[in-house]
Amino acid sequence: MVNDAQNGREMGLFATGARPCGEARMKDAYARAGVDIEAGNEAVRRYKDVTDGWRHPDQLDALGGFGGLFRLPGDGSRALVASADGVGTKILIAAELRRYDSVGADLVNHCVNDILAVNADPLFFLDYFAAGKLDPEVAAAIVGGVHRACEANNCALLGGETAEMPGLYAVGHFDLAGTIVGIVDIDKVPRPRDVVATDAIIGLPAAGLHTNGYTLARTLVGPDEWNKPFNGTTFADALLAEHPSYHREVRTIQRVAKVKTMAHITGGGLLENVPRTLPEGKKAIFEQSRWEIPPLFAELCRRGNLEHEERYRTFNMGIGYTLVVPMADAKKAEAAVAGARIIGWIEDRLDGDPAVIVHPARS
Amino acid sequence: MVNDAQNGREMGLFATGARPCGEARMKDAYARAGVDIEAGNEAVRRYKDVTDGWRHPDQLDALGGFGGLFRLPGDGSRALVASADGVGTKILIAAELRRYDSVGADLVNHCVNDILAVNADPLFFLDYFAAGKLDPEVAAAIVGGVHRACEANNCALLGGETAEMPGLYAVGHFDLAGTIVGIVDIDKVPRPRDVVATDAIIGLPAAGLHTNGYTLARTLVGPDEWNKPFNGTTFADALLAEHPSYHREVRTIQRVAKVKTMAHITGGGLLENVPRTLPEGKKAIFEQSRWEIPPLFAELCRRGNLEHEERYRTFNMGIGYTLVVPMADAKKAEAAVAGARIIGWIEDRLDGDPAVIVHPARS
Repeated sequence: MVNDAQNGREMGLFATGARPCGEARMKDAYARAGVDIEAGNEAVRRYKDVTDGWRHPDQLDALGGFGGLFRLPGDGSRALVASADGVGTKILIAAELRRYDSVGADLVNHCVNDILAVNADPLFFLDYFAAGKLDPEVAAAIVGGVHRACEANNCALLGGETAEMPGLYAVGHFDLAGTIVGIVDIDKVPRPRDVVATDAIIGLPAAGLHTNGYTLARTLVGPDEWNKPFNGTTFADALLAEHPSYHREVRTIQRVAKVKTMAHITGGGLLENVPRTLPEGKKAIFEQSRWEIPPLFAELCRRGNLEHEERYRTFNMGIGYTLVVPMADAKKAEAAVAGARIIGWIEDRLDGDPAVIVHPARS
Repeated sequence: MVNDAQNGREMGLFATGARPCGEARMKDAYARAGVDIEAGNEAVRRYKDVTDGWRHPDQLDALGGFGGLFRLPGDGSRALVASADGVGTKILIAAELRRYDSVGADLVNHCVNDILAVNADPLFFLDYFAAGKLDPEVAAAIVGGVHRACEANNCALLGGETAEMPGLYAVGHFDLAGTIVGIVDIDKVPRPRDVVATDAIIGLPAAGLHTNGYTLARTLVGPDEWNKPFNGTTFADALLAEHPSYHREVRTIQRVAKVKTMAHITGGGLLENVPRTLPEGKKAIFEQSRWEIPPLFAELCRRGNLEHEERYRTFNMGIGYTLVVPMADAKKAEAAVAGARIIGWIEDRLDGDPAVIVHPARS
């Protein structure tokens, strides 16, 4: 995940979303998956250059780049929060398997979670569906999935664009992206400066890879294996497991605990998403023994021979969303929602410390 | 253009955007360009089926599908207006010619014009840029163009998503889409029922094909010709001419004339976009002698041997935007803006009449 906190702009390098860490081996893994991390960093630098000259006066500073904030017209106390996203190369698996019912929910729930990290409630969503050849049944299955997920999040499906573009997409291939707009009380936007050492980090369980790491995952589990049994189901089911919305869980936890900041664990994993919501001088410590690594992640890491850091940059490793709460509230937060776990804490960060450390489980 | 007026949903069939008209020859032309019109109609029918079950209570009826309306939180008199769009296969020409500076403006201005048809002013925009291989220079040129057009329309560039997706897009290929959110006073949303026989139609000149008809245009002017001279410039320049924003012109005309309804002439041309803003029982008559057909359209129609109706469904034929005004205001509207022309009028529509008739110029 390379993001621009000023502009609510995200960069989805869908193999890994990661930054270079200086290890030749790791770069090899990225390159093997066809993703150029240096290019992502360079693009972000250049985006700053080309957008620096002007900024709309009603645009507010974004929090960690999860969503862009715009003052609500006529109401100085609230802001609209918007985020654009795609499903990434997960759709190549869906297309190959002709399973079109879940990618809409993947997209909507991803967007809901992004603006939830800014504490926003969804208002409305618009989709963009593009294909080389328009198949009405496929299009309707996908838009139907978008609509179902919108309804589940009480979010209007306000419009969309369906584009048939022969020459750009291969027959059977398609792309799906969308934009969500939500609303937040400005004084309830999480403030990283509230985070102090000793705060606890609550993790909410991931349902699978969500929408990140698929370019790499596809190199490790090829199409010939997708219908094979895996862990009581099939690789296909495990790979296409729907990205859940954490909206209800987060609101439930907020009723019993003071939530300081939150991170949606997307491309870049715990290592790159959690720092987006920490102040300078603080680091996050995770203890992997505190949660189960789902079997699909274990299998992918084993096959890819992924090193510790690479795992936590490429995949969510079973944690879809994190919340920083005072240690005194941690047990209440954990008890409020099924699957919520205290998975780490905040410490002071000294010069040279990484922003996130994941202590591996002893095996 | 197949659109769903209830949901602000558009369908960009980028070759022609047209509906079947029952002529085998015309279907051949669409098929030749790789676009399936029946599929577009069928997809729209199915979208209605899959989205009919639930609608957010703050979603308002949209006007002609140019944008979706959502009640502004806390202010019952205003609505947010949102629209999603793509650039279509114009980007294949831009990619081939490695000219990346104008597609951003094509996209933003297209979206600005869409919500302008609902009388909305832009608030903010988010882009979605996806490529098979991320080239930072290309990405920055494109996002820079998006930003420049946002600034020119006083529209915040609130965020975006950049996606590198090897396997979905060929190297050098990319897709670009975006979503705009604007605002309108609900009592100023144009009402088709205000349109009466004898009203005049003002046309604003197009700069070129804008963002429609490119799949067909590319079959008529191939890549080997793009750098050849054409009409004092090159085919490339003519084909990539920027889609203008009509925001300033429309606001200027509204100061001197009562504007009843407006149409952004996108896919489907005059024949399919103007009816979106007419009441039942009224038709629009255009006299082609009242404006110049730009040379690029004449050339494309000649090469494609396109029949009259096909021309006006596939291309904008030199008219980018239309406004319905009382005949008494027509001359004032024409005089207010350079290039504005009275190009037609409203008549009663009898059973069996088409909604739009374009009288050809005598040649």
